[in-house]
Amino acid sequence: MSIALVIPDRDLSRLVAALQQHLPEVVIEQWPNINQPEQVEFAVVWKQPAGSLQQFPALKAIQSYGAGVDSILRDPHLPALPLSRIVDPKLAMAMIRYLDAVLRSYQLRLDQFARQQQLAQWRPRGPRPINHICVLGLGELGQAVAAHFVDEGFSVTGWSRSLKQLAGVQCFAGTDGFPAAVAAADLVICLLPLTSLTEALLNEQQFALFKKGAILINVARGAIVDDRALLAALDSEQLQAACLDVFSQEPLPAAHPFWSHPKVTVTPHISAVTNIDTAVNQIVENYRRSQAGTPLLHQVDSDKEY
Amino acid sequence: MSIALVIPDRDLSRLVAALQQHLPEVVIEQWPNINQPEQVEFAVVWKQPAGSLQQFPALKAIQSYGAGVDSILRDPHLPALPLSRIVDPKLAMAMIRYLDAVLRSYQLRLDQFARQQQLAQWRPRGPRPINHICVLGLGELGQAVAAHFVDEGFSVTGWSRSLKQLAGVQCFAGTDGFPAAVAAADLVICLLPLTSLTEALLNEQQFALFKKGAILINVARGAIVDDRALLAALDSEQLQAACLDVFSQEPLPAAHPFWSHPKVTVTPHISAVTNIDTAVNQIVENYRRSQAGTPLLHQVDSDKEY
Repeated sequence: MSIALVIPDRDLSRLVAALQQHLPEVVIEQWPNINQPEQVEFAVVWKQPAGSLQQFPALKAIQSYGAGVDSILRDPHLPALPLSRIVDPKLAMAMIRYLDAVLRSYQLRLDQFARQQQLAQWRPRGPRPINHICVLGLGELGQAVAAHFVDEGFSVTGWSRSLKQLAGVQCFAGTDGFPAAVAAADLVICLLPLTSLTEALLNEQQFALFKKGAILINVARGAIVDDRALLAALDSEQLQAACLDVFSQEPLPAAHPFWSHPKVTVTPHISAVTNIDTAVNQIVENYRRSQAGTPLLHQVDSDKEY
Repeated sequence: MSIALVIPDRDLSRLVAALQQHLPEVVIEQWPNINQPEQVEFAVVWKQPAGSLQQFPALKAIQSYGAGVDSILRDPHLPALPLSRIVDPKLAMAMIRYLDAVLRSYQLRLDQFARQQQLAQWRPRGPRPINHICVLGLGELGQAVAAHFVDEGFSVTGWSRSLKQLAGVQCFAGTDGFPAAVAAADLVICLLPLTSLTEALLNEQQFALFKKGAILINVARGAIVDDRALLAALDSEQLQAACLDVFSQEPLPAAHPFWSHPKVTVTPHISAVTNIDTAVNQIVENYRRSQAGTPLLHQVDSDKEY
């Protein structure tokens, strides 16, 4: 029996070493160099080439190497096996650190002062009022983020597919709940999973429901946002600014208008990177569970796609 | 008896209205339109023209309209009278908000990502390690800032003219204490008063004592920094970045190299603006004390110049 790592274009030396230390009796193979595909019973996967898991006839379970599974589910030849993902409490801390920095920068108008600096313009202004925050997506990350901003004294609304109950957060759900969730928000934070329901969810119609002059932060998946609609909403001043850490295509192509738009802040997908120690612990645990035939940790609901 | 406001080039309508409400029996006059200079017993002053206070023969006390008095003390014809300044707890809160936003932006490398955005460069990097903070100047603001960063879990050193004892802060004092105060700091925050001792204090020699690659934030007075020495330290990579909210000349002249330097963040003196309510309360109290002949609140020590 063996574990296959199907994670293209990454240096996996630390991951391999850590897994080998926890599971000295198990062979760890790295795609595309799989010597004994018929021995593979567990696959750790991220952005795998379509069909690449079909070569493992004994495969019992698939483990995403990240918090999301959208890059795994889009494989039309994905075997119908239990799929689990990493749920990392440190991921939430890193995400909160990112959002805090971006929020405070916007409050202080560091974005406007940076633009004025380029023009040698001296225009003192007091802080930008940001009182009401809407969190789209109330999974582990969304809940942690919403709770953090409640603690920080903001008025917080949340929106999710099914209605949640969260202390201090006014929750809304479903298509009908969307307008009320975003209506008063100075800042909208997107933490939705990318699914067939959320793809291009943030489009012209939805942006029209935002408060005039709202700010958008997308730290979920680029494809949830309709790029053209976002640019139009910024140009019409329906939105005041956007900070984007995720994009439909990554790296963001050099010709994409987001790079040069004065109201867009681009960061290169750094808001939350999987902590290797957390990931290794969950991979090892799920490997053992798959061997024992017990339910996996953090298994994905194939209907919901998260 | 009357109060004179000697505060050129500002809209003082809110200040006048608030003072008049608290002191309905007192005449409030605004420089340069002083009808009865011989009646003026109390002056509220900010960047007054040299000699302008000499026209008030009955003047008993001078009140700075801000936290600093350097712009008042440079008047060679300043009457030798009690001088007090505003000490505003809300000023400390605003200052901490500014410093928090700037610190977190640097941790997240938002400055580097902004430069890369201009070049359409996608270069993911983890957070910049900032663990050790040095606060130069341990007056009310410096103490509040140091205590805040101790609470936030940073290792904090402080430096002042005379040695302070502050919980959780390793304190140093005087010229001899400077090297040890800054030696390990990833981030140095300048909150010194501008005095004859601190003018151009941060020069080539002092920057050489900083940790290689340190970041400087100046929220005190521009003239404490030797601009050429700072630019040289940034160009030699002795310093990694600088965020400047104050300048020797304000507004910063359009031709000044700070505007276009890639490692300098310019903000237009917005880190802490006097809260008008706090200022009015202290002005009214000090006016009453000057009338009663009792010591003023927050009186400046003329030897120390703060």
